[in-house]
Amino acid sequence: MKKVLIINGPNLNLLGKRQPEIYGIQSFDEILDDLKDYASNNNLSISYFQSNSEGEIINKIHDCVGKVDYIVINPGALTHYSYSLRDAISSIDIPVIEVHISNIYTREQWRQKSVISPVAKGTITGFGVSVYKIALFFISESLKN
Amino acid sequence: MKKVLIINGPNLNLLGKRQPEIYGIQSFDEILDDLKDYASNNNLSISYFQSNSEGEIINKIHDCVGKVDYIVINPGALTHYSYSLRDAISSIDIPVIEVHISNIYTREQWRQKSVISPVAKGTITGFGVSVYKIALFFISESLKN
Amino acid sequence: MKKVLIINGPNLNLLGKRQPEIYGIQSFDEILDDLKDYASNNNLSISYFQSNSEGEIINKIHDCVGKVDYIVINPGALTHYSYSLRDAISSIDIPVIEVHISNIYTREQWRQKSVISPVAKGTITGFGVSVYKIALFFISESLKN
Amino acid sequence: MKKVLIINGPNLNLLGKRQPEIYGIQSFDEILDDLKDYASNNNLSISYFQSNSEGEIINKIHDCVGKVDYIVINPGALTHYSYSLRDAISSIDIPVIEVHISNIYTREQWRQKSVISPVAKGTITGFGVSVYKIALFFISESLKN
Amino acid sequence: MKKVLIINGPNLNLLGKRQPEIYGIQSFDEILDDLKDYASNNNLSISYFQSNSEGEIINKIHDCVGKVDYIVINPGALTHYSYSLRDAISSIDIPVIEVHISNIYTREQWRQKSVISPVAKGTITGFGVSVYKIALFFISESLKN
Amino acid sequence: MKKVLIINGPNLNLLGKRQPEIYGIQSFDEILDDLKDYASNNNLSISYFQSNSEGEIINKIHDCVGKVDYIVINPGALTHYSYSLRDAISSIDIPVIEVHISNIYTREQWRQKSVISPVAKGTITGFGVSVYKIALFFISESLKN
Amino acid sequence: MKKVLIINGPNLNLLGKRQPEIYGIQSFDEILDDLKDYASNNNLSISYFQSNSEGEIINKIHDCVGKVDYIVINPGALTHYSYSLRDAISSIDIPVIEVHISNIYTREQWRQKSVISPVAKGTITGFGVSVYKIALFFISESLKN
Amino acid sequence: MKKVLIINGPNLNLLGKRQPEIYGIQSFDEILDDLKDYASNNNLSISYFQSNSEGEIINKIHDCVGKVDYIVINPGALTHYSYSLRDAISSIDIPVIEVHISNIYTREQWRQKSVISPVAKGTITGFGVSVYKIALFFISESLKN
Amino acid sequence: MKKVLIINGPNLNLLGKRQPEIYGIQSFDEILDDLKDYASNNNLSISYFQSNSEGEIINKIHDCVGKVDYIVINPGALTHYSYSLRDAISSIDIPVIEVHISNIYTREQWRQKSVISPVAKGTITGFGVSVYKIALFFISESLKN
Amino acid sequence: MKKVLIINGPNLNLLGKRQPEIYGIQSFDEILDDLKDYASNNNLSISYFQSNSEGEIINKIHDCVGKVDYIVINPGALTHYSYSLRDAISSIDIPVIEVHISNIYTREQWRQKSVISPVAKGTITGFGVSVYKIALFFISESLKN
Amino acid sequence: MKKVLIINGPNLNLLGKRQPEIYGIQSFDEILDDLKDYASNNNLSISYFQSNSEGEIINKIHDCVGKVDYIVINPGALTHYSYSLRDAISSIDIPVIEVHISNIYTREQWRQKSVISPVAKGTITGFGVSVYKIALFFISESLKN
Amino acid sequence: MKKVLIINGPNLNLLGKRQPEIYGIQSFDEILDDLKDYASNNNLSISYFQSNSEGEIINKIHDCVGKVDYIVINPGALTHYSYSLRDAISSIDIPVIEVHISNIYTREQWRQKSVISPVAKGTITGFGVSVYKIALFFISESLKN
Repeated sequence: MKKVLIINGPNLNLLGKRQPEIYGIQSFDEILDDLKDYASNNNLSISYFQSNSEGEIINKIHDCVGKVDYIVINPGALTHYSYSLRDAISSIDIPVIEVHISNIYTREQWRQKSVISPVAKGTITGFGVSVYKIALFFISESLKN
Repeated sequence: MKKVLIINGPNLNLLGKRQPEIYGIQSFDEILDDLKDYASNNNLSISYFQSNSEGEIINKIHDCVGKVDYIVINPGALTHYSYSLRDAISSIDIPVIEVHISNIYTREQWRQKSVISPVAKGTITGFGVSVYKIALFFISESLKN
Repeated sequence: MKKVLIINGPNLNLLGKRQPEIYGIQSFDEILDDLKDYASNNNLSISYFQSNSEGEIINKIHDCVGKVDYIVINPGALTHYSYSLRDAISSIDIPVIEVHISNIYTREQWRQKSVISPVAKGTITGFGVSVYKIALFFISESLKN
Repeated sequence: MKKVLIINGPNLNLLGKRQPEIYGIQSFDEILDDLKDYASNNNLSISYFQSNSEGEIINKIHDCVGKVDYIVINPGALTHYSYSLRDAISSIDIPVIEVHISNIYTREQWRQKSVISPVAKGTITGFGVSVYKIALFFISESLKN
Repeated sequence: MKKVLIINGPNLNLLGKRQPEIYGIQSFDEILDDLKDYASNNNLSISYFQSNSEGEIINKIHDCVGKVDYIVINPGALTHYSYSLRDAISSIDIPVIEVHISNIYTREQWRQKSVISPVAKGTITGFGVSVYKIALFFISESLKN
Repeated sequence: MKKVLIINGPNLNLLGKRQPEIYGIQSFDEILDDLKDYASNNNLSISYFQSNSEGEIINKIHDCVGKVDYIVINPGALTHYSYSLRDAISSIDIPVIEVHISNIYTREQWRQKSVISPVAKGTITGFGVSVYKIALFFISESLKN
Repeated sequence: MKKVLIINGPNLNLLGKRQPEIYGIQSFDEILDDLKDYASNNNLSISYFQSNSEGEIINKIHDCVGKVDYIVINPGALTHYSYSLRDAISSIDIPVIEVHISNIYTREQWRQKSVISPVAKGTITGFGVSVYKIALFFISESLKN
Repeated sequence: MKKVLIINGPNLNLLGKRQPEIYGIQSFDEILDDLKDYASNNNLSISYFQSNSEGEIINKIHDCVGKVDYIVINPGALTHYSYSLRDAISSIDIPVIEVHISNIYTREQWRQKSVISPVAKGTITGFGVSVYKIALFFISESLKN
Repeated sequence: MKKVLIINGPNLNLLGKRQPEIYGIQSFDEILDDLKDYASNNNLSISYFQSNSEGEIINKIHDCVGKVDYIVINPGALTHYSYSLRDAISSIDIPVIEVHISNIYTREQWRQKSVISPVAKGTITGFGVSVYKIALFFISESLKN
Repeated sequence: MKKVLIINGPNLNLLGKRQPEIYGIQSFDEILDDLKDYASNNNLSISYFQSNSEGEIINKIHDCVGKVDYIVINPGALTHYSYSLRDAISSIDIPVIEVHISNIYTREQWRQKSVISPVAKGTITGFGVSVYKIALFFISESLKN
Repeated sequence: MKKVLIINGPNLNLLGKRQPEIYGIQSFDEILDDLKDYASNNNLSISYFQSNSEGEIINKIHDCVGKVDYIVINPGALTHYSYSLRDAISSIDIPVIEVHISNIYTREQWRQKSVISPVAKGTITGFGVSVYKIALFFISESLKN
Repeated sequence: MKKVLIINGPNLNLLGKRQPEIYGIQSFDEILDDLKDYASNNNLSISYFQSNSEGEIINKIHDCVGKVDYIVINPGALTHYSYSLRDAISSIDIPVIEVHISNIYTREQWRQKSVISPVAKGTITGFGVSVYKIALFFISESLKN
């Protein structure tokens, strides 16, 4: 059973409350329940971390070494300027999957550039909260090979 | 059973032959067999179209109206400049999922901008040839809701 | 009687169906009937060509030499990047009138630059489907001088 | 009978004298006679205003409310920087048609951007002094619908 | 009793009539009555000047020397390109307070740059028509020190 | 009585000590005393929060929901790059007033762009430490309507 | 005897009063006396015009045709954005000499670009108020050839 | 005997007819006769392909694998935007020589950037129609080593 | 004996583990031992602080006032965007020496701009982990004068 | 009697031979004779230096200290990139007058930026070969004050 | 017999020693022998000049007038910034052929722009050291016409 | 004993005389004496070269091969544009240390970009004339390992 850490960045603790026309009405707790069901059916175990602090997220990523097999991260607005987060991801050997709930390419100009993508395994953008489960699907698929 | 059309743009007929260090060694025929298996297990039917001509791809997209429920498209290099393809996608009501095999954010500058993303339902980038199956997974998931 | 060829570029075959809030609800067939009436009253004869393929449009333009007196073209999205179409227009001696149905200056940034305008006789933008008839009016006027 | 005000911006009082290789040899008085003939045949009445002062043109536009049905404006070089003129146009409910005598896309870089176009009903560029009559044709046409 | 001149730039004479969803429904006459009340309670006297002409506003500013203690200016669209107005402000020793009714940072790109701000005492943006009274409050406060 | 939270971002704890030629010689404690006087005379209650950590400020903003009626924020240098702070502000329904002590438009280029302004109710820049009291004045005024 | 018109643009009426560290302490009246002496010794006659209004300066330039042999212009801040002034200069056949009192290349970025220079006979920048007399010297020299 | 395919892109079928002041007066048929002579004297065999369609050119390039030893291509205006053509060239192992008849560096800005050059063996620009024979010379030379 | 604080920013706790081809194989503990030897031989005392949190580093810098004589800082990726860190450094009177282990000018574009350098005493880049000792050498040298 | 050194930069030894439609038909020897006449009548003595080497010109400028009162320099194409020449000029206390024969603002884009102007006393551009004498006139004038 | 001068710019004296993976292992002496053989067989005579000094190369080019029929130049890094060299080439009437050994379009960004190309007869880039002989071939061909 | 060559670029011969507020009051002769002392104590021998000519500096660098172990270079203003100097440095195998006396990041924009840094071993900027000795310290340190 492979271990997957899901990390949500700044403001994603407000999911379901903040701008529901963009981010949907589900809280992440509800989403997480669904993800855990999916994971256990696919031989994955999930842990979850959210923080509004860049430093705490970097600490958490450092802490993953030797404990986690995959990271799924929605970096929130850190996506667009946190070179420190980028360096943290490129400092470790764990594959990191970047996800975004909304289609960032239909929004403000600054949301259309990710400084994280070049160090991610891959990126899933714009399918609503399904992006987390889609990431798990990829992990589960890649374990079959 | 929902109908999914997979479209591959210019040069993707060479998959498995062209730059295998970037695009892998599988031909799309082999990939397609695997996708069809997955589809039939998930109540989807798949058809496939490849062309090196922007005009033919646009014709095909127009032709989908009333015949296809989802389009999965890897526009190849048209991704980066074909506003005609973009207009074709925004002209129809069928959800379109954009996929890219390689992590375009680690390659040339011009590959990092997609003119297609703003009119796609969502985008999946950089997981190797798995991106097609990941797209099918999303479709299959969205049919459950 | 002078001969006028009207050329519509990619996706304009969907006129009346695609994004009617932008492009109106008339199909081009209906518009064409009206244009033919106008033309015959003004000593002009009209032929019509539509294609989603840049190459076919260029072939058609080359084919006009010696057969057509004026070209009215709505290049669709090719307006914004097709330097090949531009070269085709500057390669022939026939005056070419560029038209756009919507006011492209109120839309996306990339729609606000035309690579065709510098080689056109003139440009008519943003009056709805009337732009074709306005172009015919100019032709008819210029024949009076 | 609908009322149309034609406004000419800075330096257009020199029409026929200034750079005739670009702007032609007709003075606007001669052009205006022709436009008035055309207008009276098409149930339109024309008034005319020219000023070299941005402020006076804005005053004139404000003054149109309730008195004029259409404005045809050639803003001269104000086209390229007068956001005050733009705001004046967007402040009123009268449709404004922007015209330019020369093909501005074959001239200096700064002439190729209009700050007025996004608030105009439509734009007619590059057919010589015919652009004024073409604008009247559009007005006359739109009154038929 | 300190003398304050309020200057409104181009198109602000239309306040209450122009785009009320942006600028509100009060005419400046109504606003001015309220400002005069506030001023007289705070030992300030107010005069008012509006013009659509850059040159007239500059003349007015020059004319303030020795007659006015503070200027509150809403330069309208001149904000974004009138270096002449800027030079007029930096030519005199009277403190100038720049105000904008709407939040210019949520509007067009060109509205987000003020060439006036670098020579203003300070800038108040985006609180609706309250910005004038807020400016008076600052003046009244600064007189206490 | 309405509740107002004043938030000061990074380095503003040094107010009165840091670069007094730019930021003045008053410590924020002294300023706060004056603000509290003003507030109590205008039916407002004030609380105060300062942090050098982006994450802590975001946490504080989230925590305001249901507890605070207005936020007055001087984001310090976070103004210029913290899209996470911006998202936090746009995630809540509380009006946020952005203030800056110095005239940022006379300083370095990077200080002249605020990523916060587009999500603020309004912005007050450059009047020295008065900007906090000016913000309170606006709140007090808006309560009268 | 050749006729020279000296035109000063916005804010130059304040010469000697405005920012003397940049523009010197002489009023233009004093400078003009000196210029007239020089002119009469060199077979030139001088007239003078100053305005803060772009429109009035354009009118004056139009009015020069047939009456003036040379124009010496210090366009003030209009130098940097007035394409209308530029068009006025290129509309007439009179040689125009552009002068600037200060070295604009040591000042703000926007002062370093002149939209007038490409249509001027030549440009003299940065020698203090001597630039007017230097322009007269050139005129006097060119009359010798 | 090595096989060389010469490919001409859009509008080059008009060679000798289109803008002879730029492209010369020889048709490509005449040029081809001369090239065939040269080739047969240098142990090369030549075939020729021209198309106005990006898709057809890509198809032709794909078709070269195993059949052609060198490609000489004048991509016409596709030079400047066809990333699909670029990908086609980098997908095959055949050396490709890019040629341009005119000196593109003395023409429009957009003609000065080639998206093809980075994947070409080398580029020959600006010697008139000799560029094709120069390319053959290089091939013939490289066969000697 | 002068007191020197060495600060390492985000991800530098992984030194010796992260990307050793860029950053070397020594942990900072080993480096620190060497630095302490050097310091004690040169009449300096060293303390050390590392954090992945921008806020904590700013707090530490504020805390140095009156306690530390020199700061040597490797800001990690904060170098490239942390204007808050920059303001912290310019808020205190302690000389700050910026160091980078790798030659940032041979790496990604964004690594080539430091927002910290303009407020540093000086910058030492690209000599491997020696940069810390080089900084100490400078301090020791400057104490001799 | 004040000493003036005239320096001509690269390619100006070809004056009279190179592109006479731009630079005129006089050789600099002829021009120099005329300048010497003018100088002797105005209590100035002239020496002359021309080199195609940036290094030699810098050496010459260094050598002027204590020997020359004014430098008149036409830096040729070094104008546009030689920061070394700029530093040489700002390293000495001798006033330097920059001259250009042609109106550089009507030519290529790169000719429109001078890196020398910010360190020159003033700049004279575009009056043909008269610019040298105009510079002498300024020197002679400034000696009168 | 026509005379050809081959000029090599800075650092090309190191050919064969410097970065052989880019520039090959042949010294230019060896290449020159081969070129001389080719030349004598094609009725050309060759002379050679190399310098690391821009000034010396310009002197040499000036010196060619009346002595040399063609120049083949590899300007080395001067290609990318030496406007003085460009002016030297455009000052003479001798056709100049620009060559580059490596494919500059696959290297650093700054190597992809040549300031020399617009004044060259043509440019040959990226075929290794063959570029010199290819240039001779063109000269020999053009002599046949 | 290792051999170190110190190279100073254009205008650095004026050290101690030129802009002492930026570069200090010591001549390089005085500095060199101190460096030689330091060197002899650290088993290094120093030679020195200064030139105002790019070409002479490149020649000197070529001449170092086999004779010098380290180069310390202050390229002066060549830092910012001399790609020829850059190529010279990358053409040899000798480690080159780039130094700048002033903090170039607090000065003009163009001084903030070095084209030399990407090919240097490392860069030391902004510590005054100590930078030379700091470079020697690094060399001496690296010899210990």
